[in-house]
Amino acid sequence: MDFHGQLKHYRERIEQGLDRLVPPATTRPTRLHTAMRYSLQAGGKRLRPVLVLAAADACGAAIDALPAAIAIECLHTYSLIHDDLPCMDNDDLRRGHPTAHKQFDEATALLAGDALLTFAFQLLSRHYATAPTLCAALTREMGDAAGSEQLIGGQMEDLLAEKKADVTAADLEYIHHHKTGAMLSAALVMGGLCGGAHDQQLARLRIIGRHLGLAFQITDDILDATADTATLGKTAGKDAQADKTTYVKIHGLKASAEHAATQTKAALTALSELAGETVFLAALTTHLGTRSH
Amino acid sequence: MDFHGQLKHYRERIEQGLDRLVPPATTRPTRLHTAMRYSLQAGGKRLRPVLVLAAADACGAAIDALPAAIAIECLHTYSLIHDDLPCMDNDDLRRGHPTAHKQFDEATALLAGDALLTFAFQLLSRHYATAPTLCAALTREMGDAAGSEQLIGGQMEDLLAEKKADVTAADLEYIHHHKTGAMLSAALVMGGLCGGAHDQQLARLRIIGRHLGLAFQITDDILDATADTATLGKTAGKDAQADKTTYVKIHGLKASAEHAATQTKAALTALSELAGETVFLAALTTHLGTRSH
Repeated sequence: MDFHGQLKHYRERIEQGLDRLVPPATTRPTRLHTAMRYSLQAGGKRLRPVLVLAAADACGAAIDALPAAIAIECLHTYSLIHDDLPCMDNDDLRRGHPTAHKQFDEATALLAGDALLTFAFQLLSRHYATAPTLCAALTREMGDAAGSEQLIGGQMEDLLAEKKADVTAADLEYIHHHKTGAMLSAALVMGGLCGGAHDQQLARLRIIGRHLGLAFQITDDILDATADTATLGKTAGKDAQADKTTYVKIHGLKASAEHAATQTKAALTALSELAGETVFLAALTTHLGTRSH
Repeated sequence: MDFHGQLKHYRERIEQGLDRLVPPATTRPTRLHTAMRYSLQAGGKRLRPVLVLAAADACGAAIDALPAAIAIECLHTYSLIHDDLPCMDNDDLRRGHPTAHKQFDEATALLAGDALLTFAFQLLSRHYATAPTLCAALTREMGDAAGSEQLIGGQMEDLLAEKKADVTAADLEYIHHHKTGAMLSAALVMGGLCGGAHDQQLARLRIIGRHLGLAFQITDDILDATADTATLGKTAGKDAQADKTTYVKIHGLKASAEHAATQTKAALTALSELAGETVFLAALTTHLGTRSH
């Protein structure tokens, strides 16, 4: 299998899907829709939507997973826009471009985030209307992963951790599982649902996402400590500067790299037990474990 | 029919539903869930969830409409929390209590709003899972009304209008229809969907919501110009102070009162054409047209 060719193919489908499914910038109010598209088009790895498409293909791709993939990318982008706001991480750069509140203003960024979150649910309800059982399952999966006990819960604990003197390894694991792992699991499960996966496959996909999320986030912490701003496309060294508790701060660079490798390996083992065509997902998992940005 | 008794009964069901269906404040992260409940429990008229329950009863109440009612109140509360933020209306008081960012902090208020918006969709996907066609229809109705071309679009245009010198009557009508009318229509239609309403009934409910929304918002403008802070439970006279374009500013008090009365009458006419038990909804419409806060 040509991994890079397949990854490129998925990403092209996603870029086209974003352009086709998200309202044009000319839609009233144009400032709002321009801001939504600005943040969506700032690029990025498109990891979550790639996982949706790849999981759907791995399980059989019974129903087009592209709207679900676009929905989860809209949701991810909303979380980045709000996370960058002055009252949160107060970041000026994202993927090498000014963040939404820098490019527009705070109110527009706030509303563009709200609109992308809402649009994620609109997309599911519009495009899976003729398959209502799937529609309800996708909505539930995405909603729960994005909710107060998962993604937003992780954001909240992350903020609280910044003010705590004694952030434990367990606190940090909670944050990573909730901020990152939950959405990666949801992406895989949503792909599985579109692919007609059975319950055991869905449970496996959830476990894979959990390991992948932890590996991904630890690697993020390592890169923040070791890479430069130009390579990262966002401000590097920010964690240490803010004295933020990261995997690297708690465990050191060497143990962090080992943790990441262990989680990558666990994801690969779970993948090997998934009935389906998992060659691409395995290659992607390995690729993520060795990424440099 | 005992209108006030029935209204009280609906409101009690809603208060109980909020308490039962929204995660307890003790759920981790407790600060987030405490903030979500704080804003939900600050009271208010519960107009939107009352409309859901009343429309369901009017059409036959085939399936319990309470989760849908709670979902729309969570969504409304999120929009108030974000609307009150410093980068938006920067309001310190809401329903006589400190706004969420005053009681907690900006980041917590932002996340509590995000969480309530997400929770609205979670609620629908959880409680209507056994009726997936209804679940998909409710999700679509609520999502579209809350989206970038309706509620959030109205918020954005409202913000832009504050900076414009020449806000027209048409601009203002757009804002009112989108910020208020869309959610009142959605509330009635969601109630209708739970009640098993047919397409013609759903279309009528949508029209009723549109008239009701306009009447409600014009009355809001009138009250801001004429009532005092203690009666309103929010800062009065704020519109004039901010030189905000309101119905009263464009049309004057007398014509505004006439517009509100015309819209109330149009809502009542549309209601009289709705097949169903509409006595309560008619009394509510009249009640809203004569409210003092």
